[in-house]
Amino acid sequence: MSDRRGLLIILSSPSGAGKSTLAKRLRDWDPSLQFSVSSTTRKPRAGEVDAQDYYFVSEDRFRTMVNEGGMLEHARVFGNYYGSPRAPVQAAIDAGRDVLFDVDWQGAQQISNSALKQYVLSIFILPPSINELRRRLISRDQDDAATIASRMEASWDEISHWDGYDYVLVNDDLDQTEARLKAIITAERLRLSQQPKLVDHVRALQSEFEDET
Amino acid sequence: MSDRRGLLIILSSPSGAGKSTLAKRLRDWDPSLQFSVSSTTRKPRAGEVDAQDYYFVSEDRFRTMVNEGGMLEHARVFGNYYGSPRAPVQAAIDAGRDVLFDVDWQGAQQISNSALKQYVLSIFILPPSINELRRRLISRDQDDAATIASRMEASWDEISHWDGYDYVLVNDDLDQTEARLKAIITAERLRLSQQPKLVDHVRALQSEFEDET
Repeated sequence: MSDRRGLLIILSSPSGAGKSTLAKRLRDWDPSLQFSVSSTTRKPRAGEVDAQDYYFVSEDRFRTMVNEGGMLEHARVFGNYYGSPRAPVQAAIDAGRDVLFDVDWQGAQQISNSALKQYVLSIFILPPSINELRRRLISRDQDDAATIASRMEASWDEISHWDGYDYVLVNDDLDQTEARLKAIITAERLRLSQQPKLVDHVRALQSEFEDET
Repeated sequence: MSDRRGLLIILSSPSGAGKSTLAKRLRDWDPSLQFSVSSTTRKPRAGEVDAQDYYFVSEDRFRTMVNEGGMLEHARVFGNYYGSPRAPVQAAIDAGRDVLFDVDWQGAQQISNSALKQYVLSIFILPPSINELRRRLISRDQDDAATIASRMEASWDEISHWDGYDYVLVNDDLDQTEARLKAIITAERLRLSQQPKLVDHVRALQSEFEDET
């Protein structure tokens, strides 16, 4: 067993709030942070690598995993199943490595109620303004107005679930938000539930105390 | 209302684990941190100032406060009552200032179950070894062996309740423990429950979103 237990770090936000940039910065800061790889029943696209982009599984296999409690969260999107398998996450946190989850509020809620809930750290990133969110959505691709509008609706739906998280940060300054995320992760790694070795330290104190009295 | 809500920061440890030094360092770091002033029914000693060293109150007044929910924790020690009055703590956290509590495990447990429990951050400081604890207890005064032995018993009683806290730190290096305490306080100040103004930000986002659609 590792000195500390890893965290399940959930990062949720509407698209355009800066989540991907922040996740990349966190990995630059600590390369041991790993992203959770999802399982999916959809067919691999050209260039996609199994167990790296996704675990590609059959619908039967997916259902069995769900029924056996092997998925921390799952959802059906356009006829395909997507989910976060529990086994690789369990292995990582037992080895003291944190796992980052880029999931929406529904996934966050399921993970926060899963068998690993006591190791979950959930963070929501809010945009400074709707205008800024729209600007970022528009500037990063060339979609038409209807597509942008439907993305804005989806963003609002995501924002409206902001209050189900441990921490909520307004990303009006990337450097400040990055510093805050690092402080939060640094602290949460020290939480009692993440420090399974402490019990050994207390046992050692107890032996020492009993030997002397 | 302040931008953020203050925290009730509970620091517990056996005597000799370095708590007072650490509390002093935290105040040097952030002078806005204030210690909770206890109420007591015992008589003031020479030089003690009311509302600074203690709030000196009558036994009737003390009982009334307990009955009205005005004490976050209280205990009777050698015939005198001691307790942490709630009103000054409530005023401080509403103004965005954190309050430090130097209480034992029983006080910590009562505060953690009080009306202000959602704003509590509880931290326990463990010594690196019993030998080190004894060394610190002996070096700081000239008590006889029996007094030291009874203090060691009290210390062990305190240590045995180590696992009821949010964070437990082994103080084998003062600078490292100080840095960890600062990281924990910095992060916990960002917790959703400490950020009452976030709801205003989300309302502003909502108005902006509705105005545009």
